[in-house]
Amino acid sequence: MAPRLKYWGWGYEGHGLAAEERDTLLRTLAEEFGICGSGDARVPPLDGISLQAPRLNPPGSLKSICTQEPYERILHSFGQSQPDSIRIFASDFAHAPDVIAYPRDEADIGSLLEWAGAAGASLVPYGGGSSVVGGVTPDIGHGFSGTVTLDMSRMNRVLEVDPVSRAALIQGGARGPELEGGLKPHGMTLRHFPQSFQHSTLGGWIATRSGGHFATLYTHIDDLVENISLITPAGKMESRRLPGSGAGPSPDRLVMGSEGTLGIITEAWVRLQGRVAFKATAGFRFPGFLGAAGAVRAIAQAGLFPANVRIVDGVELAVNGAGDGSFTLLVVSFESADHPVVAWMDRAEECARDHGGVPDVDWRAHPDAHLKGAVGAWRDAFIKMPYARENLTPRGIISDTFESAITWDRFESFYHAVKGATRQAIREATGKEGAVSVRFSHAYPDGPAPYFAFHCGADPRSMLEQWRDIKRAVSDAVIDNGGTITHHHAIGRDHQPWYEKQRPPLFGDVLARAKGHLDPKGILNPGVLLAGRHHASTD
Amino acid sequence: MAPRLKYWGWGYEGHGLAAEERDTLLRTLAEEFGICGSGDARVPPLDGISLQAPRLNPPGSLKSICTQEPYERILHSFGQSQPDSIRIFASDFAHAPDVIAYPRDEADIGSLLEWAGAAGASLVPYGGGSSVVGGVTPDIGHGFSGTVTLDMSRMNRVLEVDPVSRAALIQGGARGPELEGGLKPHGMTLRHFPQSFQHSTLGGWIATRSGGHFATLYTHIDDLVENISLITPAGKMESRRLPGSGAGPSPDRLVMGSEGTLGIITEAWVRLQGRVAFKATAGFRFPGFLGAAGAVRAIAQAGLFPANVRIVDGVELAVNGAGDGSFTLLVVSFESADHPVVAWMDRAEECARDHGGVPDVDWRAHPDAHLKGAVGAWRDAFIKMPYARENLTPRGIISDTFESAITWDRFESFYHAVKGATRQAIREATGKEGAVSVRFSHAYPDGPAPYFAFHCGADPRSMLEQWRDIKRAVSDAVIDNGGTITHHHAIGRDHQPWYEKQRPPLFGDVLARAKGHLDPKGILNPGVLLAGRHHASTD
Repeated sequence: MAPRLKYWGWGYEGHGLAAEERDTLLRTLAEEFGICGSGDARVPPLDGISLQAPRLNPPGSLKSICTQEPYERILHSFGQSQPDSIRIFASDFAHAPDVIAYPRDEADIGSLLEWAGAAGASLVPYGGGSSVVGGVTPDIGHGFSGTVTLDMSRMNRVLEVDPVSRAALIQGGARGPELEGGLKPHGMTLRHFPQSFQHSTLGGWIATRSGGHFATLYTHIDDLVENISLITPAGKMESRRLPGSGAGPSPDRLVMGSEGTLGIITEAWVRLQGRVAFKATAGFRFPGFLGAAGAVRAIAQAGLFPANVRIVDGVELAVNGAGDGSFTLLVVSFESADHPVVAWMDRAEECARDHGGVPDVDWRAHPDAHLKGAVGAWRDAFIKMPYARENLTPRGIISDTFESAITWDRFESFYHAVKGATRQAIREATGKEGAVSVRFSHAYPDGPAPYFAFHCGADPRSMLEQWRDIKRAVSDAVIDNGGTITHHHAIGRDHQPWYEKQRPPLFGDVLARAKGHLDPKGILNPGVLLAGRHHASTD
Repeated sequence: MAPRLKYWGWGYEGHGLAAEERDTLLRTLAEEFGICGSGDARVPPLDGISLQAPRLNPPGSLKSICTQEPYERILHSFGQSQPDSIRIFASDFAHAPDVIAYPRDEADIGSLLEWAGAAGASLVPYGGGSSVVGGVTPDIGHGFSGTVTLDMSRMNRVLEVDPVSRAALIQGGARGPELEGGLKPHGMTLRHFPQSFQHSTLGGWIATRSGGHFATLYTHIDDLVENISLITPAGKMESRRLPGSGAGPSPDRLVMGSEGTLGIITEAWVRLQGRVAFKATAGFRFPGFLGAAGAVRAIAQAGLFPANVRIVDGVELAVNGAGDGSFTLLVVSFESADHPVVAWMDRAEECARDHGGVPDVDWRAHPDAHLKGAVGAWRDAFIKMPYARENLTPRGIISDTFESAITWDRFESFYHAVKGATRQAIREATGKEGAVSVRFSHAYPDGPAPYFAFHCGADPRSMLEQWRDIKRAVSDAVIDNGGTITHHHAIGRDHQPWYEKQRPPLFGDVLARAKGHLDPKGILNPGVLLAGRHHASTD
């Protein structure tokens, strides 16, 4: 029997931090940062969760692809955000979807959209359920008869591989491992590895403009997409499969980032790579974050396009047991299916040393340098990070992340302002100091994508409010200091108020008109991207 | 006194092919391809062109930035397309704009939009006037009181340079040389060099998704844009300046490719490069085009990102005096502001040799290889190409180009089908054989951007109809064989019917709704992108 997904956190039942890893994390937070959890970590038992009776029942023709089973409704009640986790451990499932539908094909999706529209229900598209911004959490507001969550997991196949163009047609519901598993026999790979890779889907990546493996160049899934098929309440919208075009505004770029508000991404042609044959990874230690940032800028502006060029500050290394807090780590790696990457890494090393970097492991002597030293230790921790929260929320410890992008000229002031605002928000919300760390997830010639993480002790009785106060303050700081409210986590419901501040108002109007045409009853993912219910009659 | 722009062709008065260059071209067409011109090349004299009296008069407040002078109205009557040229030499200026406006700032543009809207006039945005697809030709159809052409040439400054992020804020009306001239003192360059560079503008590049210098990676201007300011009849739309973002669908991607139908691009932050310090160019000869295409595919898929990787077939080399028709030429170049590019070129050379390429000039021995051999000869011809038409149209020789992009798996059949359809269309339209040539302008890992050129003798009395017949047939062939109707020439008025076939119908609806909101009276560039007049009340 396949393992079942946890309804209270990341991954499958039985998977998670080992007891020793958990204890190390709790001890580090307590001893290094004074952040102490309390209570135990009891998961709310399935049969103790009260759900309201389903407000909707699928018609006979759709019964075979729908379920109202409690585990399914509970599983689909939340994504993977901090507020989601707080509400799960508080057994708050008031907004559970009424019906979970598992379409097998585009015709099923068309029927489900039609039924939901006629029934006055909202419809929430659901890929892997890994949203950290409330993108799949059906807090749909008033005005709907209920919620249908449309789970794409049955539409998970690699349909066609084109080895000549290095591209594949893949269904929107394919999760990372399914997608790569389907490509492997062809010697191909998409190499789009967001941290959520195990439990996120191609359709979800496209809908949210996911940020993947590559720290430079092909950072977002956007650039890996040749075309998209979208099923909307108004019909199917399928763009032409092309390597490039200059014919009018790109239809795909309207779908990318639409987060399930305009339609369901059923399949897409995506660009592939050959499997990596040459690789080099190096780590460099810097006394401070800003020095390391200078090295990243030099490398990003050199036109070398490393697969990885990330920096992790001392706090984040310490939280994850990969450093003692005394240094910032720069990880650089190059990879190629075609040629040795020595000349590339030689130049990147020069950039790192020019800015005061000291090698962590000698990349020339150790082809497996990515597994060694601080680099290897942080890499291990990175993969396990999503499992931490189920151990922290129930103990009253908030652990959350947010990310942005900003041009280099404004980065230093942005860094100080946002880090300072985060520390202060934690103090004001909780009355205690927290741990605030920074890394770069991606880097562009004109600016980095800084990624912030924070931990703090909270009052278990008002944890959600404390989180909201902190979230509001850090989001204000990001927007007020010129950043984007998200580089790759998406908008969802949690970022919606700040997205309104970021996007030009006229573009918001255009988006509402697009939605009004494609989703005239406004049933798709209400509350995401657009604040209220938008349809033709509101224009 | 500054030289005046020609109203009958490319560039400034007094600039063009030398008599010897012109004679060589005519002799080559006649002797090699049997394409013989007739008649002389008399330019219609300015005072012999009859214009209807202006149907519009600017209000007093706008008089100082407007003109109705005949030369100005004649100059702004056409772009640089083949049908434009035919109509110019036939002295057909029936659709000349009534008023040419030269705004100095965004406030002027707002006033002009307001006046045009109130006066029931159409407004045609005009950058450098280099459109080859009728994008600035005011064939606006019925329903307007006249046409105001809005010439951006006074808004041509580099406003701000950010050397840290390598970016600059530049006005939309800056032509290539003005823009690069403003960046040079800062040691920076945009390095976006479309063939039209001398007479096209940043705003025009963004509005039409221009294809530039770089044959791989940063092919379109799209990727070089950090933000855009757009003045629409509904107000200003300004996106946030960012190195990257995942916050909803990109507002900039709606403006890119909008071709003056949604608003006027007044300024944009764009991404710069350091000035090139290292460069290598190599040329390779191949017996046939498809073998050379295989080398391009290998190089494009190797992850080397050459600045240039173009192939030119024997016919195009012969037409331009750069070859005897017996070989296809591959030009590869790498450039960097940061590091030697030897390792990159070494690998590209291996790819070329693997596919049967024979060096044209030894790039290791000749750092100036881009100026030598067939590579240098074709490069010279490339720069002068736009000047050829004023010598051909009046002699009854059609010379035109069209371009597309297609994935590699379909390229070979596309190549044969489109080339064959072009030859056949020429035969059917003119009763004679023409010369049809192919090159690649850009190359992606998943497919090339093939660029077709053709020459043929036409009947001077029905040249426009003959051109239309050929254009219709080749455009059908491009669309029917899976390509895009344009990779970087844009849609304008000439490609509009095929753009309708290419874009998903629902996306066309969305675009019409976007226009309905931003340009509710439908005054901006009517007939471009959207077939008819679209405004809110038609939805």
